[in-house]
Amino acid sequence: MKRLLVVSAHAADFVWRAGGAIAHVTAHGGEALVVALTYGERGESGELWKEAGQTLERVKAIRHQEASQAAAILGAEFLALDLGDYPLRMTEEAVERLRAILVDFAPQILMTHTPQDPFNPDHPVAYAITEKARQLAAGAGVASAFKTIPPPEFLLFEPHQPELSGFVPNLFLDITPVWEKKLKAMEVFASQAYLQRYYAERAEHRANHARRISGRKGIERAEAFQRVLPQVVDRL
Amino acid sequence: MKRLLVVSAHAADFVWRAGGAIAHVTAHGGEALVVALTYGERGESGELWKEAGQTLERVKAIRHQEASQAAAILGAEFLALDLGDYPLRMTEEAVERLRAILVDFAPQILMTHTPQDPFNPDHPVAYAITEKARQLAAGAGVASAFKTIPPPEFLLFEPHQPELSGFVPNLFLDITPVWEKKLKAMEVFASQAYLQRYYAERAEHRANHARRISGRKGIERAEAFQRVLPQVVDRL
Amino acid sequence: MKRLLVVSAHAADFVWRAGGAIAHVTAHGGEALVVALTYGERGESGELWKEAGQTLERVKAIRHQEASQAAAILGAEFLALDLGDYPLRMTEEAVERLRAILVDFAPQILMTHTPQDPFNPDHPVAYAITEKARQLAAGAGVASAFKTIPPPEFLLFEPHQPELSGFVPNLFLDITPVWEKKLKAMEVFASQAYLQRYYAERAEHRANHARRISGRKGIERAEAFQRVLPQVVDRL
Amino acid sequence: MKRLLVVSAHAADFVWRAGGAIAHVTAHGGEALVVALTYGERGESGELWKEAGQTLERVKAIRHQEASQAAAILGAEFLALDLGDYPLRMTEEAVERLRAILVDFAPQILMTHTPQDPFNPDHPVAYAITEKARQLAAGAGVASAFKTIPPPEFLLFEPHQPELSGFVPNLFLDITPVWEKKLKAMEVFASQAYLQRYYAERAEHRANHARRISGRKGIERAEAFQRVLPQVVDRL
Amino acid sequence: MKRLLVVSAHAADFVWRAGGAIAHVTAHGGEALVVALTYGERGESGELWKEAGQTLERVKAIRHQEASQAAAILGAEFLALDLGDYPLRMTEEAVERLRAILVDFAPQILMTHTPQDPFNPDHPVAYAITEKARQLAAGAGVASAFKTIPPPEFLLFEPHQPELSGFVPNLFLDITPVWEKKLKAMEVFASQAYLQRYYAERAEHRANHARRISGRKGIERAEAFQRVLPQVVDRL
Amino acid sequence: MKRLLVVSAHAADFVWRAGGAIAHVTAHGGEALVVALTYGERGESGELWKEAGQTLERVKAIRHQEASQAAAILGAEFLALDLGDYPLRMTEEAVERLRAILVDFAPQILMTHTPQDPFNPDHPVAYAITEKARQLAAGAGVASAFKTIPPPEFLLFEPHQPELSGFVPNLFLDITPVWEKKLKAMEVFASQAYLQRYYAERAEHRANHARRISGRKGIERAEAFQRVLPQVVDRL
Repeated sequence: MKRLLVVSAHAADFVWRAGGAIAHVTAHGGEALVVALTYGERGESGELWKEAGQTLERVKAIRHQEASQAAAILGAEFLALDLGDYPLRMTEEAVERLRAILVDFAPQILMTHTPQDPFNPDHPVAYAITEKARQLAAGAGVASAFKTIPPPEFLLFEPHQPELSGFVPNLFLDITPVWEKKLKAMEVFASQAYLQRYYAERAEHRANHARRISGRKGIERAEAFQRVLPQVVDRL
Repeated sequence: MKRLLVVSAHAADFVWRAGGAIAHVTAHGGEALVVALTYGERGESGELWKEAGQTLERVKAIRHQEASQAAAILGAEFLALDLGDYPLRMTEEAVERLRAILVDFAPQILMTHTPQDPFNPDHPVAYAITEKARQLAAGAGVASAFKTIPPPEFLLFEPHQPELSGFVPNLFLDITPVWEKKLKAMEVFASQAYLQRYYAERAEHRANHARRISGRKGIERAEAFQRVLPQVVDRL
Repeated sequence: MKRLLVVSAHAADFVWRAGGAIAHVTAHGGEALVVALTYGERGESGELWKEAGQTLERVKAIRHQEASQAAAILGAEFLALDLGDYPLRMTEEAVERLRAILVDFAPQILMTHTPQDPFNPDHPVAYAITEKARQLAAGAGVASAFKTIPPPEFLLFEPHQPELSGFVPNLFLDITPVWEKKLKAMEVFASQAYLQRYYAERAEHRANHARRISGRKGIERAEAFQRVLPQVVDRL
Repeated sequence: MKRLLVVSAHAADFVWRAGGAIAHVTAHGGEALVVALTYGERGESGELWKEAGQTLERVKAIRHQEASQAAAILGAEFLALDLGDYPLRMTEEAVERLRAILVDFAPQILMTHTPQDPFNPDHPVAYAITEKARQLAAGAGVASAFKTIPPPEFLLFEPHQPELSGFVPNLFLDITPVWEKKLKAMEVFASQAYLQRYYAERAEHRANHARRISGRKGIERAEAFQRVLPQVVDRL
Repeated sequence: MKRLLVVSAHAADFVWRAGGAIAHVTAHGGEALVVALTYGERGESGELWKEAGQTLERVKAIRHQEASQAAAILGAEFLALDLGDYPLRMTEEAVERLRAILVDFAPQILMTHTPQDPFNPDHPVAYAITEKARQLAAGAGVASAFKTIPPPEFLLFEPHQPELSGFVPNLFLDITPVWEKKLKAMEVFASQAYLQRYYAERAEHRANHARRISGRKGIERAEAFQRVLPQVVDRL
Repeated sequence: MKRLLVVSAHAADFVWRAGGAIAHVTAHGGEALVVALTYGERGESGELWKEAGQTLERVKAIRHQEASQAAAILGAEFLALDLGDYPLRMTEEAVERLRAILVDFAPQILMTHTPQDPFNPDHPVAYAITEKARQLAAGAGVASAFKTIPPPEFLLFEPHQPELSGFVPNLFLDITPVWEKKLKAMEVFASQAYLQRYYAERAEHRANHARRISGRKGIERAEAFQRVLPQVVDRL
């Protein structure tokens, strides 16, 4: 029974990149919390702004509703920090809020974006905030003056252009059993039909990779992740 | 119940670098096979050559006896290919013999040296032989004209000077429960008392690292490995 | 009017990975020559070996026929060196044969596999043969005792698992105008229906990447390449 | 007819590193705009400070005059943001000013310094400002709430100590036809005679490299650049 | 007679990581100045906080006393900037204070932490402050408007988990002659007995590495460093 | 009084790349031995082949004479192995001959080419032969059955296109005092006047770099090297 914390730069990122992992954790009785640092209201809501008379508040409200609904389908709670996008800023306040959430939720697994992304100004900032908050929440592995949590596993999820973002997956998760949930969660974002298809195909490609790597024939859909810290195990 | 294949460039390498992992696998009912490509008879048996009238055959016999005994303590089978050391050569025959062993033993886990080592001419060759044999044994993940095995996990064990060999551990194994066995296996190599102490201390250092990474207080001895291929899992 | 030389480790590689580029060159009045180092008769013709009484010669003949047909659809000439696969070997003869072809054909563009591929024992060898032949054919940029050609541009094509093969694309080619030809060439390999779909989807994904990188809306299918040597241009 | 935007940390950088490229673009009917983030008034104007009674304002005025004159020789417009040097600071205001310039000028090509430079505190900051402004100006390739421009090509120019700054050129530009202009622009900086000679020789060395890479004998002077983003082309 | 400046993120770091180097310099008549950016009062003083009624000021006072005593044993002066830990912040003031110290002390050798450390939020910030201050203090190697010092050699000391912090040693210092002083300095930190043993063993391991690299048998204890900038020598 | 061994792929490489270092060692009473693996008779003697009726033996004789003369000017002994160029081959015999030379000469410093060079097929092979011979000559730092020498320092010299060959200098040698000797040695290769000028200018550029790195104003000519193994020192 694991607790998973997903830090999403914009409101929809968690669905495309980690929807299967979230559904997996909750399907096995775990808890998942999605923290969206921003709604992506300026940089990734262009379709909504095509409506005449659109306002910032209304765009945020729509994005909040969509993301909450998608999270619910995946069995996760959704929390929006509304820090402002394009650009998202690395501030002490942002780090502190996320640190407090980390200490409170005490996840076994933490996920976010890659530290590089030449096609998105906010994803690397989301990484920086998360990485700093993680280190402050877990301490340096020695006794400290403040409350710390056991260090969570730290995973990066797949960016849109993996090679150009320095992403090298070292963990493939078989999401075949929860695929229908991810599909439904993606369908919530009705205005982004192309991405639904893109990530559906991507899940099949990653499954093909995973089958070749492992020899396990039954994998039909997979998600790719990059584990940042060493695993510590008591069995090989 | 796993099968573990360890490819050791010289007769003693497997004890210092993977003794705990071997003992772990066999302690849990698995099988371990150690393949020593050479006896290290020329490059790493200097103490034996200090005896007057020493011969190559006698050095090899001593090394065989020691390595077999150490393997037995760890619960593993020991097989020596006797390919000749300093230099070990990357030949088609070496690759073919190891490929056949791989197909026959069909391990779930395969371990060997790092591809770089500026202080050992044979370790990178052991890697090259193992990597080629692994790829031929497992095929490219598609149907082929020859018998293939499911691709084993592929781990590199810790070299003597990790940073200079490009070794970045991403897997720490808690070997606390089997520590006594590793210690006994190391003691077999009586002439290398210094290394016994070195690797005993190293196991404590790696345990310290593993405790800080994971927060698990009970780890007293650990071994470090670098997983080469992505993990494929069905649970986070 | 360019001359393009594609070095393919096995008989079908060039279609999946560079079919669009080949069709492009020939559609613009250029010449393309595909050199298959092997037929992939052992490692990548498993479907054919399922037929009772199958023989090596017959497998090679079928592969030759298919690859020639696919090359013809793309407008390219097909030449098979039949060096033997799984493992393909880096020999002086292989290098010398390819060097002679390079000097004779004098391509402006040369393409082959990536130097790393953890899931294919032959692709890195194809790279090594090609890289050595290229250097011998072009010389070191100074006068020499043998005939040299102007150094061709050197491109790597996309491997099956790009990130794990160290592939970082720095060139996207819009293959929209020749897509039908690539599709037809892929259909020649009837027993590999899955790969047809995989690479058709991949072409759309790479087009999506290329659109985002360049802002050019009209790109519907693309191929990704990694240019190895600097470009030398007389206009930005 | 291209538009080129060059972001120069200090007033003279653009001449040594990109003078040929600028002259090339303008010689072919394109427009070039040089944005100097600072005058280099503190860190790189030491010769001027040797005059008794020198003032900051006067140093800036001299640097402005010199840089404007050099830009004019190259056919470029010169704009100084006067953000203060040693240290140049990465501020939201700096990013926003450059973003606005980018959206307004809408260049097809954008050039700046490398992200690393162990011998200059301001060059990496100039990169950081430019990279953030670029991403905000171009968006993430999807519709957004603000005006975006088609993503420009992004080039880094040659730093003073290339290898120590992680610079690996992948683009050589033949500047032979515009060499006289670059030479004249360099001569404007009368107090830096050594650098005139240094970069004149460097242009010949890069031409030597370019000739060896390409086989084109006619290249007598060249500039080296590192293209950061993939090229998207419709012809090989 | 060298001057050595050591920048330590927290009060005790300099002892474990550079105690031997400091004692070496002072034993040969040089001067050493330790600048502790923080006391590590929150993140690395947990033992002290176990006392009932503990206060921040008292923790800092104890840490100040211990660090001063350890520095004195090594022959160094100790200066605490008290910038606040967990998190240490990269501010203009911090950079300016360290720059002024650098210009004033004009060290030939400068040491600090690695730019990466996944298990300590403050070490990379200490690096960033030091690196910026170093560049501002030394200028870009050309005449400038402010006082500069000859560029010091720049060394990184060994982090707790070297491979995970990107540390690759390229300098081993034989600290055998000053070992007793380092041991005594470590003993000052009575509450951290484990680390005394850890770094005592580490010194022996690094000596083993240094003996193998150099063939010098007499090295019994060593410290490892990574030199960041090229050496400039007038003899090989 | 040092012994320096320089392994040169072709007959002239050592002059351009290490002439200053050689002259330095011999000027200080040390010994230098240049081992040319080949004469560069096919790949780098094109000017000689322009003479009518030229023969391989005569080309080799001329190259032998020139290289011997240049070595003599630098104070070094010259030994040619005549292994054949374009391509130079990595054979056991080549390694064994160089290993024997290493054990016999027992240099404190060993120099050769970089492991990568996209514009020269023989330079990486020269590295591979040298690296293997070095490891066999020095052993793994433990007692062995054969005679070993103390491990020499291992330096790579500057390739023609440094960045494209992965060369990152970490050692600059001031060759000002021996510059005249290097110049004379270069002039021996009369047919390569361009390279004389190229490397004379390069020596000034590297001196400029070295001055900026170190602040030492007196450096007028320098050579750049990459030290491969850590330094082991007993003084900072």
